[in-house]
Amino acid sequence: MSLSADIVRSRLGRVREHARDASVDVLVVTHLPNVQYLTGFRGSAGAVILSPQTCILVVDFRYVTAAAGLAQGLDGLVGVVTAEHSYDQALAELLRQNVSRRVGVEGAYLPVSRFNSLAVGVSDLIVTERLVERARVIKDAAEVRILREAARRLADVARRVPAFVAEGRTEQAIAADVDAALRQAGFSRPAFDTIVASGPNSALPHARPTDRVLRSGDPTVLDFGGVYDGYCVDLTRTVQLGPVSEAIKQLYAAVCEAQQAAIRAVRPGVPASAIDAAARGVLERHGLGEVFGHGTGHGLGLEVHEEPRIARPTARVPDQTIESGMVFTIEPGAYVPGVGGVRIEDDVLVTDNGCEILTR
Amino acid sequence: MSLSADIVRSRLGRVREHARDASVDVLVVTHLPNVQYLTGFRGSAGAVILSPQTCILVVDFRYVTAAAGLAQGLDGLVGVVTAEHSYDQALAELLRQNVSRRVGVEGAYLPVSRFNSLAVGVSDLIVTERLVERARVIKDAAEVRILREAARRLADVARRVPAFVAEGRTEQAIAADVDAALRQAGFSRPAFDTIVASGPNSALPHARPTDRVLRSGDPTVLDFGGVYDGYCVDLTRTVQLGPVSEAIKQLYAAVCEAQQAAIRAVRPGVPASAIDAAARGVLERHGLGEVFGHGTGHGLGLEVHEEPRIARPTARVPDQTIESGMVFTIEPGAYVPGVGGVRIEDDVLVTDNGCEILTR
Repeated sequence: MSLSADIVRSRLGRVREHARDASVDVLVVTHLPNVQYLTGFRGSAGAVILSPQTCILVVDFRYVTAAAGLAQGLDGLVGVVTAEHSYDQALAELLRQNVSRRVGVEGAYLPVSRFNSLAVGVSDLIVTERLVERARVIKDAAEVRILREAARRLADVARRVPAFVAEGRTEQAIAADVDAALRQAGFSRPAFDTIVASGPNSALPHARPTDRVLRSGDPTVLDFGGVYDGYCVDLTRTVQLGPVSEAIKQLYAAVCEAQQAAIRAVRPGVPASAIDAAARGVLERHGLGEVFGHGTGHGLGLEVHEEPRIARPTARVPDQTIESGMVFTIEPGAYVPGVGGVRIEDDVLVTDNGCEILTR
Repeated sequence: MSLSADIVRSRLGRVREHARDASVDVLVVTHLPNVQYLTGFRGSAGAVILSPQTCILVVDFRYVTAAAGLAQGLDGLVGVVTAEHSYDQALAELLRQNVSRRVGVEGAYLPVSRFNSLAVGVSDLIVTERLVERARVIKDAAEVRILREAARRLADVARRVPAFVAEGRTEQAIAADVDAALRQAGFSRPAFDTIVASGPNSALPHARPTDRVLRSGDPTVLDFGGVYDGYCVDLTRTVQLGPVSEAIKQLYAAVCEAQQAAIRAVRPGVPASAIDAAARGVLERHGLGEVFGHGTGHGLGLEVHEEPRIARPTARVPDQTIESGMVFTIEPGAYVPGVGGVRIEDDVLVTDNGCEILTR
């Protein structure tokens, strides 16, 4: 889907506001998901120079036609410049026209070598943080439409998954089936390497599919996601093969209860950490606090891991207030070495008074 | 495959030499393919601190078990430290023990914000370039073995591909078949988004698969690659559906001839630009110089685009001398709007007196 001029105008407006708040006149956007967010451009290289008056998309020869077509539909909001030799040279030339202005770059992404090369000839190069991400965290109508459809399709794939899990099959073969099902469901690619973790491997939260053959009695964690129209969704199911042990049954019940508690805690105005605490509290009451070693969720959008972070705050990453329009995963888990693991993950959209579960 | 102590010792030795040449005492490696190259570690986060005496792999809680297991097989060459809170905090603490030494970082990859946070408390933080990449460009025996096997499997997939190309099918359906064939052939994932560009789309060198339905008379460019045991291979075939036009026949013959000329030009001691010039010269003689808008090839290894760059040198990227043990693609193409396009790509290993075509 290409972006409408109205959507682009609103996104540019919000980011210009954040730039002004950071005392930046001109923002150089080099992180590709941010370039895509602002302009709709989806190439494998590109950059944007955003000033209060202009938004210039810089592309190389491969994308000249695509970028020009895209700009044409945008009421003159976005201009296109072709990088003749290199991106940094093109950016440096464009910045020379802004010599007296405060130029901001994306500190979390711009490599220090590129920073140093851009800094030559710019009087004041400012390291900024999260100027575009701050806008991206609240999904607009166009994004909600895509994410809702993507999640619906992913839930359809999830319904097919238990049929892939059978005695005598390898984790790798099952992962291949999941990836094929994602393609058939209209996803352009998996959002990350599909996880199929069976038996003892289910106790490893970030296992890769191996050639282990599944046996009766195995719990199997299947974590997979897809990219649909540029947007990422993510889902986990734990499937039991044959008779279930008492230990796994208890893990499963506790993780379900933790997920329900977290989902009930989602609403505008609460800190993200409160959602994490809701899941964590349930698992702690079941004596499983120590075996839930990751956060409760992460934002979804143009990237599969983005803001907000649904976890305990750290010194480096402060807590974040939940707002309507955020989309994130809720994925508590419990991993007991020697016993096995369970994780259940769904995607939610924050509404005005709670949340909508997108993956049901 | 896990790395042997001998391989790791040799890799660490070469990079330490390059670091010493750059007057760096301690090198902070944050680019993940470089971390993997030095230690064999394959997580989705991690870092290495390399000094003349030690090599410390920094991981987070998710990878503690995997990293410890890996270090155990390496004769004490690699130590493991767990990042308790964040990677940058762990790196900063380790660097404080090296306060009087010249510390190098990877300028092409380390974001400027992380550079600034590491620079606090380090007397001398040096921006380095290509210290690990310089070692990676010459493949060692372990890498050649993997790449040879990967390319053999990719060539097998290529032989199946013409059967996927049929009237009435969409580019997207064919791409899904290619991806499934890659999985079946033992690849852990596609090395990049598979390209299937049919009819007029074949004239776009970086097309994405669309819902265009193939028709008799279409030329179709299929460009795909796979990751096998961590290493990337890459291949392109152009398949004709039904009767071929005179124009496409001529393009195909010229591109074949250009590829042959480039392959014949590969041997140790020649500049990479000479290989590009061999392909380009043939296409220019056929009046197709203007419609060959990209370079002739790129290196393959842990990344799908790495050194050497087989192209005309630029002000920013100097020419590179070809050496035995390099592995790269040879992929000339010609793209004529309104007519169609042809690209043919194979992967070669430079030998002592020429090259071995890996994808045949």
